[in-house]
Amino acid sequence: MTDDQAARAWAYLAAVAEPPCAALIALVAELGPLGAAAAVRSRKVPAAHRGVLAPTQARAATDTAAEDLARCERIGARLLTRDDPDWPGWQLLALDQADSAARGGAPLALWVRGPASCGDAVGRSMALVGSRASSSYGDHVAGAMAAALADEGWSVVSGGAYGIDGAAHRGALGAGGTTVAVLACGIDRTYPSGHAQLLHRIAETGLVVSEYPPGTSAAKHRFLTRNRLVAAFSSAVIVVEAGRRSGAANTAAWAKRLGRPLGAVPGSVTSATSVGANAMIADGDAVLVADSGAAISLASPDGCDTREAAPRRRTDDLRPDQLRVVEALPARGGLTVDEIAFAAGLPIDDVLRALAALDLSGHVAGSDGTWRLGAR
Amino acid sequence: MTDDQAARAWAYLAAVAEPPCAALIALVAELGPLGAAAAVRSRKVPAAHRGVLAPTQARAATDTAAEDLARCERIGARLLTRDDPDWPGWQLLALDQADSAARGGAPLALWVRGPASCGDAVGRSMALVGSRASSSYGDHVAGAMAAALADEGWSVVSGGAYGIDGAAHRGALGAGGTTVAVLACGIDRTYPSGHAQLLHRIAETGLVVSEYPPGTSAAKHRFLTRNRLVAAFSSAVIVVEAGRRSGAANTAAWAKRLGRPLGAVPGSVTSATSVGANAMIADGDAVLVADSGAAISLASPDGCDTREAAPRRRTDDLRPDQLRVVEALPARGGLTVDEIAFAAGLPIDDVLRALAALDLSGHVAGSDGTWRLGAR
Repeated sequence: MTDDQAARAWAYLAAVAEPPCAALIALVAELGPLGAAAAVRSRKVPAAHRGVLAPTQARAATDTAAEDLARCERIGARLLTRDDPDWPGWQLLALDQADSAARGGAPLALWVRGPASCGDAVGRSMALVGSRASSSYGDHVAGAMAAALADEGWSVVSGGAYGIDGAAHRGALGAGGTTVAVLACGIDRTYPSGHAQLLHRIAETGLVVSEYPPGTSAAKHRFLTRNRLVAAFSSAVIVVEAGRRSGAANTAAWAKRLGRPLGAVPGSVTSATSVGANAMIADGDAVLVADSGAAISLASPDGCDTREAAPRRRTDDLRPDQLRVVEALPARGGLTVDEIAFAAGLPIDDVLRALAALDLSGHVAGSDGTWRLGAR
Repeated sequence: MTDDQAARAWAYLAAVAEPPCAALIALVAELGPLGAAAAVRSRKVPAAHRGVLAPTQARAATDTAAEDLARCERIGARLLTRDDPDWPGWQLLALDQADSAARGGAPLALWVRGPASCGDAVGRSMALVGSRASSSYGDHVAGAMAAALADEGWSVVSGGAYGIDGAAHRGALGAGGTTVAVLACGIDRTYPSGHAQLLHRIAETGLVVSEYPPGTSAAKHRFLTRNRLVAAFSSAVIVVEAGRRSGAANTAAWAKRLGRPLGAVPGSVTSATSVGANAMIADGDAVLVADSGAAISLASPDGCDTREAAPRRRTDDLRPDQLRVVEALPARGGLTVDEIAFAAGLPIDDVLRALAALDLSGHVAGSDGTWRLGAR
């Protein structure tokens, strides 16, 4: 088969049943994408896979694969399939094991838009979720926590919605971090419409993800199904602000079901927008999380932040001034020389001298007047 | 011995050692108050009780008993001793068992001021404690929670300090409830001085308590020793607001040591005055308590509020209107006819007719234009 044939088959399969559809995944595992697509289209499936017929019945004869792929290409999106090296299989393992009847199965494929590697972006990631009708307190905490997480090299996963989701995405973007928006509609849709610009910005540096084929409109059941991906894609889920009834409670329930640590940010007991978060803590469902450090501890319960396992930057051989300059630079984003001097508490001349040496050694990299940490 | 002799002996003993002094309590248990006072004064104690000599050495020759008793009588206070029927022995049992070396022993006697029975006041009681430098949020929550607890027939115990303590006492007073202030100075002192009026009001309806003889000034170690009584006197301890370092943490530690359930009111993670309370919840030391109902559940973990065990008012034989009037009346305090009509949603005439019948049956009692629940 050609790549193009395979892509068409995957795109057909990704649209032929409302996800998640465990029966379809099982069929693809047995017959491969082309075989599975042909079997579904012809309604002739192996006896052991007859469960795939009902969920594909309505759409089997409608093949929008070429159109979907073309639409994606136009907006810079791509179809990520289970056989792709970038497929976040490890994160989705919990979904493979979850009850498919409860709409908890894994996705067959993901439509993704943005430069970030999906596997990387969800490898060390924190979901920040909460009410659409958030308070300024919730927005502030979500934004600050997202920025602090981004500074520590964590990506921030959320649902792209108004309120807490938006504040979390913006906080991560503002800190130059990676953020992942998981949509409940087609990757080509901008929902909510007021977040068109935000989703565009996310797609420029991070990732917008959907398991729904292009053109799919947002619907209530898709928000609930989407929430399981937000939980699955994260090392921990933090509910920043939630009223008595909030979609965040659904994401929180998915976190528990998938074995993801659940945290909640407390708020005033007089605030209606914190009733849900406070209740999760009071009921012992969520751990109280007051800052990004607590969120990271929650996501790394053995105290072994995954970052620790990564190779450390070799800074042992640096001179004291050089070390202070390196330590003044954030994990993401860059600083001007003035900002570095301020953060490091060093005279400008010393900073410039240190930067010159660090640039040569690969510890820092400069462009457009700002300096960031280098590859080394 | 005469009552007067016994009172003088108790007053002497209550002042001769800095409380708590387990050795002195043991001596009194063996020799009685007169024998113990004579033995301490003469420095001739049974061999098994030689441990009492050191803590009583400095004050043994100074007998201010008559003066202390007279001073108390002038301000309407009394000395409550371990042989008094009103002695809250059950609540103090945990202290008898606590480590005396950690200043955790039971008091030998208590100086009390106010009309409330000490045994009753601490029998169904909640400690609300927190920062002296509280925020308006903390003051509001403390006051509202205290009022709601008072409405449910709980007394509110606190330390009489500025901030949360004061707000809790005021809330209980405003709801016509019983509140208990435990002082870290003599019962005749008003500390803090700005709370002279508040302590006076508490003593009019509730109880001001101290284990320190009249004239004793407040000192740091006495606040810490006092805190154990606040915890012991309560079915549960609720930290309403506490910064990173707060005396409330000490009361909370006593609650844990004495086996009292510990609750904390969450607050904004951006608020310095909630850092301590949030940390207690995050660390699993305290349960998140959002309202008086949660506090009561915490204090009655088996769901069996002690009030349930008390004989219930017989309202089964009341007519519907009468029942609504009875249910409109708070557990403490009274309402005017207009207020009852509003609360019960009944016309004034119907309220008046119901009240007349209820007055006869003893379900309600009226005075000065307000009606309250009767003895029945």
